[in-house]
Amino acid sequence: MAGRVDVAILGAGNGGIAAAADLGLRGFTCALCNRSPERLEPFIQLGGVETTGATGDAFVPAARITPDLSEAVAGAEIVMLTVPASGQEFYARALAPMVKPEQLIVLNASNTGSALHVARLLVEGGAPPVAIVELNSLTYICRMVSPTKINISGRAKTTRAAVLPTAAREDAFARFRRLYPQAELMENVLATSLTNLNAVLHPPGMLMNAGWIEHTAGNFFYYYEGTTPAVARAIEAVDAERMSVATAYGIASPSFLDFFYRAGYTSERAWAARSIFEAVKDSTPNRYIKAQANLEGRYIKEDVAFGLVPMRAFAEPAEVATPSINAFIHLASIATGVDYMETGLTTRRLGLEGATRTDVERLVRVGPWGVRR
Amino acid sequence: MAGRVDVAILGAGNGGIAAAADLGLRGFTCALCNRSPERLEPFIQLGGVETTGATGDAFVPAARITPDLSEAVAGAEIVMLTVPASGQEFYARALAPMVKPEQLIVLNASNTGSALHVARLLVEGGAPPVAIVELNSLTYICRMVSPTKINISGRAKTTRAAVLPTAAREDAFARFRRLYPQAELMENVLATSLTNLNAVLHPPGMLMNAGWIEHTAGNFFYYYEGTTPAVARAIEAVDAERMSVATAYGIASPSFLDFFYRAGYTSERAWAARSIFEAVKDSTPNRYIKAQANLEGRYIKEDVAFGLVPMRAFAEPAEVATPSINAFIHLASIATGVDYMETGLTTRRLGLEGATRTDVERLVRVGPWGVRR
Repeated sequence: MAGRVDVAILGAGNGGIAAAADLGLRGFTCALCNRSPERLEPFIQLGGVETTGATGDAFVPAARITPDLSEAVAGAEIVMLTVPASGQEFYARALAPMVKPEQLIVLNASNTGSALHVARLLVEGGAPPVAIVELNSLTYICRMVSPTKINISGRAKTTRAAVLPTAAREDAFARFRRLYPQAELMENVLATSLTNLNAVLHPPGMLMNAGWIEHTAGNFFYYYEGTTPAVARAIEAVDAERMSVATAYGIASPSFLDFFYRAGYTSERAWAARSIFEAVKDSTPNRYIKAQANLEGRYIKEDVAFGLVPMRAFAEPAEVATPSINAFIHLASIATGVDYMETGLTTRRLGLEGATRTDVERLVRVGPWGVRR
Repeated sequence: MAGRVDVAILGAGNGGIAAAADLGLRGFTCALCNRSPERLEPFIQLGGVETTGATGDAFVPAARITPDLSEAVAGAEIVMLTVPASGQEFYARALAPMVKPEQLIVLNASNTGSALHVARLLVEGGAPPVAIVELNSLTYICRMVSPTKINISGRAKTTRAAVLPTAAREDAFARFRRLYPQAELMENVLATSLTNLNAVLHPPGMLMNAGWIEHTAGNFFYYYEGTTPAVARAIEAVDAERMSVATAYGIASPSFLDFFYRAGYTSERAWAARSIFEAVKDSTPNRYIKAQANLEGRYIKEDVAFGLVPMRAFAEPAEVATPSINAFIHLASIATGVDYMETGLTTRRLGLEGATRTDVERLVRVGPWGVRR
């Protein structure tokens, strides 16, 4: 019989292991679960996870480590998905029959439309209404350095969080903030969804360097060398459309440049010059990051399918034109042979077919539980 | 008083000087004209042009060399524009008051919609009806090796030519063919316009290598290294749309791959594999061609503004969707800051606003002289 835990962590990738280490060190009891048992095996042997870096060197035991989802989530106050967007559907469907109304679901990290998508899948699977926290960035900067050890080089300085439905906002945020005191509460999940800056930054950089990436298997400095003036102008065009969508919903989302500067990623000089090209050039943390080796990685897969595609889905009810976003979705599709307007998080998957701006605003307020369409 | 000449060559760039040399050597009398007198000065001093390469070393005198357009075209049987698409508007407007109905206008080379565009400008300027020959590729492979000497490395094996209006087809082609016996007559100017393969090949390659081009100032093998599988897939998507537009107008335009193979640019192996990636990889003549140094060159300027933009203008009346063409037009615009849907050869400039497929077919048959819209 599984006892009470503070958090059930679903997904034993970088983010999940970092959460198990960090939360465990800070006194929270955690269950760790992963759909493929192989990945979990070394942690089961160990009875926990190892950590290094900003946390210091430590072994952090876990309350339980299991590939059995029902065992992992039973008795968990918070159920935290630490899988990429493409893995959320699996866990949402699997959780539907077992999630309890008092459990809080946290999507760490989220992309665009993640909370709405997960909520719809839970409803489809017969789950009772639950509160879902959507975050706009992963809470850790980390990478695995051995099969059982995570190197946590930092925690995000701020984490924007929003709650679906809005009625659960204060209570859910208070519970979430116990885990991550640096969290900042946004008005609703449109605010987090429309501040997905990876979706602004990555597809232009990948697609406008597609030849270079494929020819060299990504052997160049992706940000420092690959973000040339033309690429930066395209990023700016996508960013302007993203902000227009946010504005149409009454949300004041910061520009990429403002966000990048405030997060400490670039110089004041570049920020003052209002130049994305200069800002990326001056970004010390990104200086030596190599390009991905091909177009199969998450900079396209995730940031188009779960970034640009749902942004477009939110733009349409608000009647905001997104020609640059559309162009990059199409280009990603013809370049990779994957039809992202079919496989991504579309209008249909988000339940926004025929929706008006007011419908969307109501949907993010009450969630799919309160909307009969 | 200017006497009779076979050809007035307008534009003293590579194509114009090659034409003056080649046609002169083959016994045609030529006048040579250029809008900027500076460019013409060394030829005036010399009284002709120098040539080397496939023609052998020779000095070729010209009947007259003058920056005065009326002097150049008076008494010319054929008026041949040898300027890039962006220069055709200037010459068309300037020619309007002086062109004679019996003169044949040749656009060498043409892009997409060139003959229609020039015809409209002539009509606007009050010119009488004239026959216009549109070619789908420049007739020479050449480059200047000194201010007065052209190196002609080859003549195009075939040159597709079409005539506007169709009524003048046989007569105009017979006159044109005296100059270029390798010419092949197409049904109408849609056939040449919609076989603009530079517009298919260049914008994807430039825009999907934009970062590489800007970071290295084009220091890589543009075709051999830059046409990776993803870039080739995008070229294929654009090519499929181009062929769909042609098909909608009843024109059987060859695929890029077929054209490239038949022109002798690639191996049978690559052609048989039906792979644009393999075909470009196997292209010996293109093997060592470096990329352009920036996005300001004609691979974008000409092939978007006078290639993809007018292709889209022809697609709309035929109700053919061109999402890939549209994406590259938009991407070129945001990457360079030039709004190509404003500056390019648009629906409006081609006189196709509100036109149906039948209207376009009639327009290419009778030209703007016969159409009262």
